[in-house]
Amino acid sequence: MNTISSGNTIALRLKLNKNVNISKISDLITKMQGIVRGIDTIEINNQTSLRDITFSATNEEHTDSIIQAIEQLPHIKIEHVTDRTFLIHLGGKIEVKSKIPINNRDQLSMAYTPGVARICTAIAEAPEKVYKLTMKRNMVAIVTDGSAVLGLGNIGPKAALPVMEGKAMLLKDFANVDAFPICLDTQNVDEIIQTIKNIAPGFGGINLEDISSPRCFEIENRLKAELDIPVFHDDQHGTAIVMAAGFINALRLTKKKPENLKVVFSGVGAAGIACTKILHELGVVNIIGCDRKGAITKERTDLTDVKLEYAKITNPYNESGPLSEIIKNADVFIGLSAPGLLTVADLKNMNKDPIVFAMANPTPEIMPEEANPYVAIMATGRSDYPNQINNVLAFPGIFRGALDVQASDINESMKLAAAYAIANCIDEAALSKDYIVPSVFDSNVAKAVAKAVSIAAKESGVARKK
Amino acid sequence: MNTISSGNTIALRLKLNKNVNISKISDLITKMQGIVRGIDTIEINNQTSLRDITFSATNEEHTDSIIQAIEQLPHIKIEHVTDRTFLIHLGGKIEVKSKIPINNRDQLSMAYTPGVARICTAIAEAPEKVYKLTMKRNMVAIVTDGSAVLGLGNIGPKAALPVMEGKAMLLKDFANVDAFPICLDTQNVDEIIQTIKNIAPGFGGINLEDISSPRCFEIENRLKAELDIPVFHDDQHGTAIVMAAGFINALRLTKKKPENLKVVFSGVGAAGIACTKILHELGVVNIIGCDRKGAITKERTDLTDVKLEYAKITNPYNESGPLSEIIKNADVFIGLSAPGLLTVADLKNMNKDPIVFAMANPTPEIMPEEANPYVAIMATGRSDYPNQINNVLAFPGIFRGALDVQASDINESMKLAAAYAIANCIDEAALSKDYIVPSVFDSNVAKAVAKAVSIAAKESGVARKK
Repeated sequence: MNTISSGNTIALRLKLNKNVNISKISDLITKMQGIVRGIDTIEINNQTSLRDITFSATNEEHTDSIIQAIEQLPHIKIEHVTDRTFLIHLGGKIEVKSKIPINNRDQLSMAYTPGVARICTAIAEAPEKVYKLTMKRNMVAIVTDGSAVLGLGNIGPKAALPVMEGKAMLLKDFANVDAFPICLDTQNVDEIIQTIKNIAPGFGGINLEDISSPRCFEIENRLKAELDIPVFHDDQHGTAIVMAAGFINALRLTKKKPENLKVVFSGVGAAGIACTKILHELGVVNIIGCDRKGAITKERTDLTDVKLEYAKITNPYNESGPLSEIIKNADVFIGLSAPGLLTVADLKNMNKDPIVFAMANPTPEIMPEEANPYVAIMATGRSDYPNQINNVLAFPGIFRGALDVQASDINESMKLAAAYAIANCIDEAALSKDYIVPSVFDSNVAKAVAKAVSIAAKESGVARKK
Repeated sequence: MNTISSGNTIALRLKLNKNVNISKISDLITKMQGIVRGIDTIEINNQTSLRDITFSATNEEHTDSIIQAIEQLPHIKIEHVTDRTFLIHLGGKIEVKSKIPINNRDQLSMAYTPGVARICTAIAEAPEKVYKLTMKRNMVAIVTDGSAVLGLGNIGPKAALPVMEGKAMLLKDFANVDAFPICLDTQNVDEIIQTIKNIAPGFGGINLEDISSPRCFEIENRLKAELDIPVFHDDQHGTAIVMAAGFINALRLTKKKPENLKVVFSGVGAAGIACTKILHELGVVNIIGCDRKGAITKERTDLTDVKLEYAKITNPYNESGPLSEIIKNADVFIGLSAPGLLTVADLKNMNKDPIVFAMANPTPEIMPEEANPYVAIMATGRSDYPNQINNVLAFPGIFRGALDVQASDINESMKLAAAYAIANCIDEAALSKDYIVPSVFDSNVAKAVAKAVSIAAKESGVARKK
């Protein structure tokens, strides 16, 4: 079930006796399920040749086993091993650049002292000018405490930094939003909130990232109430918006109506709750969440505060029991939980034309190969299957749209607008079972999302710029 | 005493009747003490011509008076007024850029998920790798609370942002250091310290900027003790280092010895105290500080805690009285106070070959025109006279040197090394009364400072990288 990833690409520099054919090595790599990416000749002389062979593997163990097998071959010496992913990370992935040069006294006296004093004075006299005359206009803080990073868990702020840098790159490359990582050396909720409030003046928006549940709810809610710039927890709302886009298109294809659906969730963490809320807004009435112990009901006595709240707004017919019971007659399954939790038997018990979003990462609740014969629509979080529910479709355009109108918030109507904009990036004619969300490299998406979000911000009264 | 600055440069678009000669306008500007920077022809037709005339003035009042005078001229209409300094500030002066592209799935899966997870894991397992694999290696936070910005005072964090952006530009352009402004929405010392500690994991250094005294001392001292990255308050130490560089060269020229000198300070704020300390390290024994009430002595009962501490380490012969008394027989005057505090009579009372650093901004304690006949060496903070004591000579190279060796501190020996490196950028042969510090645009300075600071860091045991 594991797949080859460019994220795991290695270059080997090999010294070969002249009689050794390099194809022997590429054959070995292929036989061992690796993918040969390229062969480069560095040097050939009378006795030996120096070659680089680049290959991708599934994971580090796989890489190591291939390297060990190559080491066993006669007349071949591995000179060194280069890891492409580590190579591109050397010294970090982002930099802070001047937009204008400072090469002479003239430029210095405008960009810095004494000229800059006039700009400072202008802002001191009319604080709203900070949007016009500083980086705040286009700058987002990507804030994490490193408590829930990817699938890696609580690895802390330093180890989280490469993800935040990657996110900053995506905001810049996909939507020309400047973004800067802030990795916090505290996991205390009050301190996180205070710190973000303290650093807020220079930013036009805050993107919360990889903060564990339930702390992420209080942090987001209090910051939204106390700051006058948008605060957006991507793990919740990014996922919800892209899922909603896929959901909208899935309903278009299957001609189902939200108000008639039974939707079952497996996993009611931060993303599950956000997905539930956006489905409510799309008109879905009957949503039932399940955790490891089965359906979330108001009667359960083992629930956390967050799940108790969840029980109040879901499960209108008060169904109880394990997922395998609850899934019966469901129209939609939304998985944000763990591998293998959904079975073919479950799919057979669902209503006609089941819609399955199996988004557990990296291994879905049910694999597409297994599910496809029994479902109308299948989506996952993975890039190696159709219909990838990827936040990258949402967050760059959302911040672009919010910054463009100097929004004070990213509210529910902006999120819904983003979901519809993503869904509408696929033409009616192109829409199909294996194409319900656009490609992450579709350059129209961020623009369409930004435009829709800007309009929604204006209409809902949170845009400073009219 | 005011000078023309490019920081105050205006472009006027003028519609002229065909019979009006543009030289009439440039003559008027010159007559009114403005400087014409350029004349551009936009359009000429039968009746009228459209011209842009760009000029610099002393300050906004001066600009306005010139514009009003032009408005009085017949057959001329001002179409619009463009302020070059405001123009270059539109949308801010810095941006955050990706160092590598993300154009396809391959790149995405290395820079972001899934490949980035391997980088995160590597750092989680060996935290020191954060220097190798993230932006921390080259990133400095420029932190202010906006309480003492330039000569503008407590204008707050938003209005301070243009200065911090300018500083980030200088760090990048002069020493390839990435720097990011953090403008704090608090002026509480404990909160400032806690906030900076909380955001520290992503940074390789902290530059404190424009924080008022005496708060700046406690903030710097506690952060230096509690963080494992360098903390540097530029307003104190940047000034002290460049002053010291000028001082070293002034002594070379005048053949004076530090141990024999009497040095008198006017102004014992943050920069004055830092200058005093670095002169002690250069071997000066007899330093006397003066504030508005005269010499700082242990006997005075009106002193703040900071000045009491100052009294303990200075004034070994316990002199008292006003500056005009204390200055008698002094060899060196260091001014960090206010315009006009030093008189020609004072200069005449100093020892042979007086050395004067009159660094009050923008108007020195005594103007060079007035002082020059009576002094051996004259330095100011201004760019329009020789010997400008400008922090830009110090901070880019200092952070470059500290980051290059992953220093945990910027200590006294690194500061002294920086001062000597700046002083030594001027050849023995070139050294003269009006050339004791190099030009801010001398590209050798930052490199020389960085090298000296790196070596000093290693020798003093604060370099992580050997």
